[in-house]
Amino acid sequence: MTIKDIALCCGVSVSTVSRVLNNHPNVSEKAREKVLRAIQEHHFVPNSSARDLVKLESDSVGLVLRGIANSFFAELLPPMEQLLLDAGYTPILHQIHSGTDELEAAARLARAKRLKGLILLGGSNDYSREQTAALKVPFVLCTYTNSFGNLAPNQYSSVTIDDRKTGYDAARLLLEHGHRRIAILLDSVRDRSVSELRWMGFRQALEEAGVPFDPALLAESVSFDMDGAYRRTKELLAAGTAFTALFAVSDTMAIAAIRALHEAGRSVPADCSVVGVDGIALTRYTIPSLTTFVQPQKELVCTAVRTLVDLIEGRGGNRQIVLDAAPRRGQSVRQL
Amino acid sequence: MTIKDIALCCGVSVSTVSRVLNNHPNVSEKAREKVLRAIQEHHFVPNSSARDLVKLESDSVGLVLRGIANSFFAELLPPMEQLLLDAGYTPILHQIHSGTDELEAAARLARAKRLKGLILLGGSNDYSREQTAALKVPFVLCTYTNSFGNLAPNQYSSVTIDDRKTGYDAARLLLEHGHRRIAILLDSVRDRSVSELRWMGFRQALEEAGVPFDPALLAESVSFDMDGAYRRTKELLAAGTAFTALFAVSDTMAIAAIRALHEAGRSVPADCSVVGVDGIALTRYTIPSLTTFVQPQKELVCTAVRTLVDLIEGRGGNRQIVLDAAPRRGQSVRQL
Repeated sequence: MTIKDIALCCGVSVSTVSRVLNNHPNVSEKAREKVLRAIQEHHFVPNSSARDLVKLESDSVGLVLRGIANSFFAELLPPMEQLLLDAGYTPILHQIHSGTDELEAAARLARAKRLKGLILLGGSNDYSREQTAALKVPFVLCTYTNSFGNLAPNQYSSVTIDDRKTGYDAARLLLEHGHRRIAILLDSVRDRSVSELRWMGFRQALEEAGVPFDPALLAESVSFDMDGAYRRTKELLAAGTAFTALFAVSDTMAIAAIRALHEAGRSVPADCSVVGVDGIALTRYTIPSLTTFVQPQKELVCTAVRTLVDLIEGRGGNRQIVLDAAPRRGQSVRQL
Repeated sequence: MTIKDIALCCGVSVSTVSRVLNNHPNVSEKAREKVLRAIQEHHFVPNSSARDLVKLESDSVGLVLRGIANSFFAELLPPMEQLLLDAGYTPILHQIHSGTDELEAAARLARAKRLKGLILLGGSNDYSREQTAALKVPFVLCTYTNSFGNLAPNQYSSVTIDDRKTGYDAARLLLEHGHRRIAILLDSVRDRSVSELRWMGFRQALEEAGVPFDPALLAESVSFDMDGAYRRTKELLAAGTAFTALFAVSDTMAIAAIRALHEAGRSVPADCSVVGVDGIALTRYTIPSLTTFVQPQKELVCTAVRTLVDLIEGRGGNRQIVLDAAPRRGQSVRQL
């Protein structure tokens, strides 16, 4: 008797049985009663047999995370882990440092823990077929995709916002407010990831508007962490090149930049407008609240988990899903 | 051949072998070479046998988390999960809603996943022996302890700051800056947890200083989330009772309170001083930066993991560890 048998004889899904076993509130009383009765009738003890041990083991999903410093991932992870548990899978989190190859780490984890699948959070957008072949299990890239790589659409799954468009929209928003001298704060223009894509979109919007970009306004902090962003903004200010607005590729970087501006006696938005990306919860409460392009967290998480579970359970093939990042107007941008 | 055999024949710890297998940077080159050579020589494939499957399964540790809304826990979890992996255990995260009984959820998880042990993050300080008996595996309360319960010291382990002392120290800090009318923003004075303890310490400091507490300055938001704290501070301000300082029992609540003060035209610290607790990374960058009592995150995480691993592996008995929360001076407090 396994959890699947219980589900079968109750006419409910495995995840419903799992929810009942885990005392999760999100189950109808009717379903809960049915499942509890079946458990009693069949003297079911969850996962008590060797077979169940193997089953449990083989139902693990790896979450490989690069970008620990970013509050955005800290907000994504807990609901993702919960959704996987609800779907009957055990999430195993594996964090890697920025210097580590996420595919190598993921492949090792998949082997060592006999994973059924992988969700990679934060990584490089230039995978080749040779690199991903080592994974050997279904995988979903979450918050990034294969923009610079050579994978065919049937060789990978991804759920992400359109990073290039987000950079474009952020620049448009600032241009529409009359800004022409706009600084950009990012990891690196050649990170083969979100910084590079948002930079491309940002540049395109400026070009289309006939606004030349002054290279002195490019601030690469070679990381996504707050301390790096803070120090890089200090340097930008110390260099003395004038700018009236700044686009930061993450909210935490934007908050650190606002701090650096503040310490240099420049108030936001009076002396400088600032736009971020992510939409982390805190940006509603900071002073000023932040104008930011909100990543649809719930949709990202649900879509990534659903895509992976579908792949693991043989429903449909690989797919690339692009979600919308909508601007949320805070108080950090002003009309020039 | 298991990971333990490899460790044995290399003369290194299991966690070192685990780090090598997981390509973790924190291994000496010498140890890495030795382990890789042994793996080659013995044709070791990690966890390939049924025995290893059982072993893997039985090496899981549950992390039961209450308090998802709090960035503080979001910062604690990733290093905790990493340390457990390094020690050869697989962390399984289980989040519960504020209405759920964490001990019941933990007991179910322990049974369903055959856990070796549990770390409970955020919970109630009033457990009885009858309640914890259901856990049946070693457990560590992390960020709280059994202040109101009847467990004997040999019946539980905990790692926490002294919450009562932290409330006391926060009030002292504000009193020393000349404040007498101090509001307090917390979950509830009867939450049988950190709010109640910090409230007790806060009251004690006021009493010792001969400062009467005006009940109108007690703001219970019946949650720890930012939105609740923001709305409760709005109500406090609308009620019109004068105060020159506010103590919030968490940093995120303090940031939300500063926002509410700001919207009411009250600048921090000019018109109101604010003190928080936790020391989350963002408080260094907010405007104003926050004066807060910093929980020693690394020490909390390391001590909780070490205590649990010791209990699981039979090294020493239950222990209660109290760590120090030190004030970090920001710009949110001024001398009256």
